[in-house]
Amino acid sequence: MNDYSPTPADKFSFGLWTVGFQGADPFGAATRPDLDPVRAVHKLAERGAWGVTFHDDDLIPFAASDSEREEAVSRFRAALDETGMTVPMVTTNLFGHPVFKDGALTANDRDIRRFALRKVLRNVELAAELGAETFVAWGGREGSESDAAIDAHSAFERYKEGVDLICEFIRDRGYGLRLALEPKPNEPRGDILLPTVGHVLAFIERLQHPEMVGVNPEVGHEQMAGLNYVHGIAQALWSDKLFHLDLNGQHGAKFDQDLRFGAGDLKSAFFTVDLLESAGYSGPRHFDFKPSRTEDEEGVWDSAAGCMRNYLILRDRAAAFRADPRVREALEASRVTELRRPTLAPGEKAAELLTAKEDFDPEEVGKRAMRYERLDQLALEHLMGVG
Amino acid sequence: MNDYSPTPADKFSFGLWTVGFQGADPFGAATRPDLDPVRAVHKLAERGAWGVTFHDDDLIPFAASDSEREEAVSRFRAALDETGMTVPMVTTNLFGHPVFKDGALTANDRDIRRFALRKVLRNVELAAELGAETFVAWGGREGSESDAAIDAHSAFERYKEGVDLICEFIRDRGYGLRLALEPKPNEPRGDILLPTVGHVLAFIERLQHPEMVGVNPEVGHEQMAGLNYVHGIAQALWSDKLFHLDLNGQHGAKFDQDLRFGAGDLKSAFFTVDLLESAGYSGPRHFDFKPSRTEDEEGVWDSAAGCMRNYLILRDRAAAFRADPRVREALEASRVTELRRPTLAPGEKAAELLTAKEDFDPEEVGKRAMRYERLDQLALEHLMGVG
Amino acid sequence: MNDYSPTPADKFSFGLWTVGFQGADPFGAATRPDLDPVRAVHKLAERGAWGVTFHDDDLIPFAASDSEREEAVSRFRAALDETGMTVPMVTTNLFGHPVFKDGALTANDRDIRRFALRKVLRNVELAAELGAETFVAWGGREGSESDAAIDAHSAFERYKEGVDLICEFIRDRGYGLRLALEPKPNEPRGDILLPTVGHVLAFIERLQHPEMVGVNPEVGHEQMAGLNYVHGIAQALWSDKLFHLDLNGQHGAKFDQDLRFGAGDLKSAFFTVDLLESAGYSGPRHFDFKPSRTEDEEGVWDSAAGCMRNYLILRDRAAAFRADPRVREALEASRVTELRRPTLAPGEKAAELLTAKEDFDPEEVGKRAMRYERLDQLALEHLMGVG
Amino acid sequence: MNDYSPTPADKFSFGLWTVGFQGADPFGAATRPDLDPVRAVHKLAERGAWGVTFHDDDLIPFAASDSEREEAVSRFRAALDETGMTVPMVTTNLFGHPVFKDGALTANDRDIRRFALRKVLRNVELAAELGAETFVAWGGREGSESDAAIDAHSAFERYKEGVDLICEFIRDRGYGLRLALEPKPNEPRGDILLPTVGHVLAFIERLQHPEMVGVNPEVGHEQMAGLNYVHGIAQALWSDKLFHLDLNGQHGAKFDQDLRFGAGDLKSAFFTVDLLESAGYSGPRHFDFKPSRTEDEEGVWDSAAGCMRNYLILRDRAAAFRADPRVREALEASRVTELRRPTLAPGEKAAELLTAKEDFDPEEVGKRAMRYERLDQLALEHLMGVG
Repeated sequence: MNDYSPTPADKFSFGLWTVGFQGADPFGAATRPDLDPVRAVHKLAERGAWGVTFHDDDLIPFAASDSEREEAVSRFRAALDETGMTVPMVTTNLFGHPVFKDGALTANDRDIRRFALRKVLRNVELAAELGAETFVAWGGREGSESDAAIDAHSAFERYKEGVDLICEFIRDRGYGLRLALEPKPNEPRGDILLPTVGHVLAFIERLQHPEMVGVNPEVGHEQMAGLNYVHGIAQALWSDKLFHLDLNGQHGAKFDQDLRFGAGDLKSAFFTVDLLESAGYSGPRHFDFKPSRTEDEEGVWDSAAGCMRNYLILRDRAAAFRADPRVREALEASRVTELRRPTLAPGEKAAELLTAKEDFDPEEVGKRAMRYERLDQLALEHLMGVG
Repeated sequence: MNDYSPTPADKFSFGLWTVGFQGADPFGAATRPDLDPVRAVHKLAERGAWGVTFHDDDLIPFAASDSEREEAVSRFRAALDETGMTVPMVTTNLFGHPVFKDGALTANDRDIRRFALRKVLRNVELAAELGAETFVAWGGREGSESDAAIDAHSAFERYKEGVDLICEFIRDRGYGLRLALEPKPNEPRGDILLPTVGHVLAFIERLQHPEMVGVNPEVGHEQMAGLNYVHGIAQALWSDKLFHLDLNGQHGAKFDQDLRFGAGDLKSAFFTVDLLESAGYSGPRHFDFKPSRTEDEEGVWDSAAGCMRNYLILRDRAAAFRADPRVREALEASRVTELRRPTLAPGEKAAELLTAKEDFDPEEVGKRAMRYERLDQLALEHLMGVG
Repeated sequence: MNDYSPTPADKFSFGLWTVGFQGADPFGAATRPDLDPVRAVHKLAERGAWGVTFHDDDLIPFAASDSEREEAVSRFRAALDETGMTVPMVTTNLFGHPVFKDGALTANDRDIRRFALRKVLRNVELAAELGAETFVAWGGREGSESDAAIDAHSAFERYKEGVDLICEFIRDRGYGLRLALEPKPNEPRGDILLPTVGHVLAFIERLQHPEMVGVNPEVGHEQMAGLNYVHGIAQALWSDKLFHLDLNGQHGAKFDQDLRFGAGDLKSAFFTVDLLESAGYSGPRHFDFKPSRTEDEEGVWDSAAGCMRNYLILRDRAAAFRADPRVREALEASRVTELRRPTLAPGEKAAELLTAKEDFDPEEVGKRAMRYERLDQLALEHLMGVG
Repeated sequence: MNDYSPTPADKFSFGLWTVGFQGADPFGAATRPDLDPVRAVHKLAERGAWGVTFHDDDLIPFAASDSEREEAVSRFRAALDETGMTVPMVTTNLFGHPVFKDGALTANDRDIRRFALRKVLRNVELAAELGAETFVAWGGREGSESDAAIDAHSAFERYKEGVDLICEFIRDRGYGLRLALEPKPNEPRGDILLPTVGHVLAFIERLQHPEMVGVNPEVGHEQMAGLNYVHGIAQALWSDKLFHLDLNGQHGAKFDQDLRFGAGDLKSAFFTVDLLESAGYSGPRHFDFKPSRTEDEEGVWDSAAGCMRNYLILRDRAAAFRADPRVREALEASRVTELRRPTLAPGEKAAELLTAKEDFDPEEVGKRAMRYERLDQLALEHLMGVG
C-alpha cells in the first residue's frame, strides 16, 4: 500500500513565507512567532521537501546592512548544505514596505521605480548565487483602486521597461535564470495589472526577450476570478510558458485564502495534478499557501505535509484514472481523442474545404451524444477511490 | 445645452440580435415577436445609429436555401441603401444549433469542426460583400463542463488551425477584413476557452498571421470575472489589438446580463468612455446588449436610445473632467503624469542603475501621499455633473 | 463491497423537469426531445428512485383544458401505481410564461398576482390529491433588474399576502401540506427577493402561520452567492425549518449550473451529506439538476444515477469519517465537542459572569493551537477513500 | 447652488477605526502613524460630522489597566464635550487579538467564550455611560475554514446564549441600548456564520428578546456576496429591524474593500440614499470605510469628507428624481405604484379567489410592457445630473 510519503524526487518546494506565515490578517494580529529560515529548511527537509524559495525580505531584513545580509545568507546556505535542499526559485518583495504602496515597477514616482529595480537586481544576484533557475516577479502593488489614479498605457510601458531591464541584466551577467511573472486579479490593490495567466502571456510577447520570460500561475489567483486553473495552465503549457507554478487552495471569488493544496476545489486539484503529470511538466511542485492562523508551529508542519500528501494521493488517483480501460473506452466514446486529429486534411486549403462535398446533416449530427456525464463520473469516482 | 442626440458621426452600431432579442431566458419563453432585420435597420437609423452588425443566422435562417439566402441579403442591402447604414462588422453563429453543443472549431467531432469552418468561410464572403471591416469570432461553445471532457492542448491546436484557416482565406481572397476574437469566461459552457482579454491577446501571438487578428472585449464578459474592463481595453490598446468592442452593462460575477450601456457599473462606464476618447479609438462604438424581456418593441428602442445617450453623456462628462484645471492639478499632485517618464535615463544600463548613488530614503518616501482619494472624488463629481 | 445501488429506502427523488430538461440555454436550442412524464417515472423507478416531483406545467400544459388536465394526471397516477413511486413534493411554475415576466405574487399588475395565486391554489389541490407532503414555492421572477422598478416594501407585503393566502387555503381544506420557500440570489432576474436561506427564514417569521412554512435550500443557489451551503442548512435545521432541499452542483459565482450532485464543490457535498445524515434529516433527498445538453436520453439516466450514487458514496465516506477513532480524537483535540457545553454555568447570570474571578491569560490562551489543518486533512482523506 | 456641506443635522457618524486606519493589509505594513482619538473627534467635528463610534480597543488598549482605561475615556469625553459630538454607537473588538482566532461567542474553548462575553459586558457599560443608543456586534471570527472544524448547530446555540446574555444584562441594568448584529459572508474567516442580512434577521427571531435586537447591514458585506444592498435594507426596514447601518463602497465579489461611500457601485449608492430618505430612516448615517493606504492624514480627511459629500449629492439627486413629473408618470406607467394595492379584495378568501370569474387572458397580458428601461434611464440621468 502506498503511504504517500514525499521524497526529493517529487520536487516539492515551499516558500519561506508560507511555513513562516505568522497569521496576521486584515482584522487580526500575528498568532505565531517568527520562524527562523534555518529551522524552516531543516523541518521541510525532514518532511521530504526538495526545495525552498524566498523573497529577499524573508531571508534578509529590509534595512539590513551588508554584513547582516552576508550573515543571513551564509546561515541559510549552511542549512541548505546540511540538508541537501535546493533553491529552485527566488522572488523579490515589492509590496510589503510602505514605499511600494503605489506599486514598484509602475509606481507613479520615478525614484520609487528605480529603487524597486535596484532591489530586484540585487536579488537576482543572490538568486544566481544560490543556483536558482527561476526568478518570480509578482507585481502585487502594480494596480489601482481608481481608474483615475493610473495611466494604464504608461503603466504597461514602465512594466515592460522594468522587465526588459531585468532580462538585460541576467543576460549581461550570463546567469542561467528565467523570469516567471505571477498574475493576480486583485488584493491588495483594487485591481492589479496583469490579472490572469492570459494577461501575463500576452504581456510577455511585447517584451524584448520573450523567450526568457514565462508565467507562474497560482491556483487561488485564477480561481478568485472564477477562472478554470486547469485551462489556464493548459494554455501556458501550450505556449511553452509554464516556467513555475504555485499550488494552493481557494473557495472561489473572495479574498485570497491560500489554503493548503487539496483544500478548496478538490476536483480541480485532481485535474491539475493529472495535467501536470500527463503533460510531462518537470518543474518544481511549489506550494504557496498560508497555514491557518488557528495553528501553532506543529500545525504549520501538518499543513505543509498535507500539501505534499494530497499531491501524491491525487497523482496516484490520476494515474489510475488514465490507466482504467473503462476510462480509455469512455474517452473514445466521447471522441476526446479525436480532437488530436487536425480538422483539415494534409495540405488542404480553405477553398477546398469550402467546396468539399461532405455528407453532413446538422440535424442528425446535432443528436449525437457526447457521453460527458459518464466520463466525468468516472473521474469523480477515481478521485474518491471508488471501485 | 447638449441634448445628447446621436448622429452617424458618433459611429454607434448595434447587432441585429440585440434589438431583435425576443426575451427567452433559461427559465422563460420569448416575450416579444420576431423583429424583421429590415425594420431594425430603419428604426436604428431613425435613432441616429451609424451601423448594424449580425450573425449569419440573424439574417439568414440556419437551413435557408440559396435563393432564400439571396432574398434575405438583398432585402437587407436595400434597407442599408435607403438608410445609409453601414455594416462595420459581421460574425458567425457557432453556438445556437444543437450541432455545436460541444463546440465548433474545437468540437471533438472532426466533421462538426469542418462544418463550422465552412459556415464561417461562407459568412466571411458575405461580410466582405457587405463591406465589413471586422469579422468577430466568439467561441461561446469552445469549452467544457468537466476537465475530463476536453483535451485542452489539442483544443488550442484546433482553435489555432481554424483561425489560421480563416486568415488564409481572407488573404487568398484579398478581402480587407480583420478578425476580432471575443473572450468570455463562462456561460453557456461551464468554462470557455480564451476566457478574458488577456487569454485572447496571448493566443493571437501563436497564430500564423497575428497581425490580422485582434480582440473584441465586451464589458460584461470581463466583469463577470470581476476584472477591470478599463484595464482590459487599455492592455488591448497598448498591444494595438483593440479591433472592435462590445459595450453593455453587468452587475459583477453572475450570469451574463447584457444590460444597456450605462446600467451596471456606471463609474467603470465613465472611465471606459474616457479611455476610448482620450486614446483616439476610432472604431465603432458597438452595443451588444439585450433589452429587458419586460419590454415591448417600444422599450427596445428606448433601451437602444439609452445606450447611445449614456455614451454621449459620459463623453461629455469625461471631457469636462479632463479639461478641469483642478483635475490637471490633481493629476500632477498624484504624479499620474510622471509615469510617462521612463524609469531609466536615456541609454542607462542595468549595471549603472544598480550602482547609481541615489539619495533615497525608503522610510521617508514611504510617507509620501498619493492623493488618490481626492482625485477619485473629482472624477465621481464630474460623472455626477456636480459643480 | 458496497456497490452503491440506490433503493427506495434512500428516499431519492427527482423533478420531472430535471430528467426532462431538453437542453435549451440562453445561447442555444433544445438538444433533446420532450420526455413523457410516464416514461420518466418508470425510468427513475428502475434506477432505484423513490419519488418524483413536478411543476404543474411539467405535467399539464399551461393552457390545457379540464379534460386534458385529467387525462395527464390520470396517466401519471397510473405510472405511480405501477412503479410504487411517491410524489413527496409539488411546485408551481410561476416563471416560464411571459405573463410572469415581472413576477407573480409580487408582479406590479394586480390581475397577474391574482392569476398567479389561482394557479398556485389549483396546484395545491393537485398536490394534496397526489399525497404530497411539501409544496415548494420558488419566486424566481419576484425581483428586478433596476431598483427603480420595484417598491420593495410593497413587494414584501404582497409576498406575505400571497403566502398567507396559500396557508389559509391549506388549513381550510385540511390538507396535510407544508410550504417550503426556495431562495435564489439572481437569474433569471437581476436580483431576486429572498436571495438566500437566511432571507427566507427571516421572511417566514413575518407570516401569519410561520409554523406551516419552511425553506427549500438548493446547493447551487447558495453557492452562486459564495455562501457555505452546509452552514445554510445548519441554520435551517437549527431553526427547525429544513422542510425540503435541492441537491445539485455548482462552480461558484456564475450562472446557475445545476450540475449533477457531486460534480461541483465535492468537499462541500461530502459535508452536506455528513450533516444531513448526522442531524437525522428524514425528508427526501431531492435532486434538482440539469443533465448536460451534450447528452442524449441515455446520458440523462447516467447523470440521474450519478446523483444517487454520489450521495451513497459520500454517505459511506462520511460514516467512516465519523467512526474513525483518529477523527474522534482529533475532534477532541480541536475541542469541537466542547462547543456543546454551555458558556454559562447552570443559572449563572450576566452580573456573575462579569465579576467572576477567572484565571485567564489572553496572551497564553492566544497561543493554543486549534489543530484544524490536521482535522480537515482527515476529512479530505476519508472523502478520497485513503487508508 | 448647493455646496453639499454636512452639518450635524445630517447625522453623519464615523468609526474611530475608519479615520484611524493605519493602512496595514495582508501584504503590507502600516503607512500612517497612530491617530489620537481626541484628534479624530476634533477633525471630524470640524468637517461637519455629528457622531463618532468605536470598538473598545480603538479607545482603550487591550491590556490597559483600570487607570489607563479611565484616563482614555476621560480624555475622549472631554473631546466630545468640546465639540458637541455624540457617540450613537459602540462595538466590541472580538477579532483582533490572537485569543479570538477561533471566534469569541462561538469559540470552541469555553473559557474564551466567557472572556469574550466579559469583554462585551464591560463595553456595554461604557456604551451606556457615553449615552450610546446602539451596541453593534460583528462576529467576524465566528466561523470556520473547514466544515469539519465547527459544530454549526452548537455554534448557533452558543451564539444565541451569548446574545441573550447581553440582552439580559442590558435589561437588568436598565440601559437604553439596542443591539445590532452585523452580517458578513467571509473574511477574515473562510465562512462566517450569519453571512447576510437575511441570516441575521432570521437568527434574531430565535432569541429570547428579539425586540431588543436588529441588524447593522454594511454595503460592502452584502455586495461581497453579489447581493443587492437596497433589497437587503428594504427587508430589514420591512421587518422593523434596521437599527443601524454601515455605508461604504465595494467592487463586487472580492476582498472587503471598505471604499469611501460613493466609490464602488454608484447606482446602488443612489438607490440606497433614495430608500433611506424616502423610508424615513432616522438613525445615524454611519460610514465604515478605510481611507486608502496610499494617503496621508490629509487624504484621510479628504476621504471622510467625500463620504459625507457623496451622501448629500445623492440625497439631492434622489429628491429630484422623486419630484420629477416625468418620473411620477413613468412610475405609474410601470405600475410600480399598483404594487401597494392588496392582491385580495377586502375580506376576500382563498376559496373566493379560486372561483372568481375574471376575464384574464394570459397570452394578451403577457404582451403588456413594463417600461422599466425608460424608468431606469430616468434614474440614471438624475444620478448624473442631466437635464
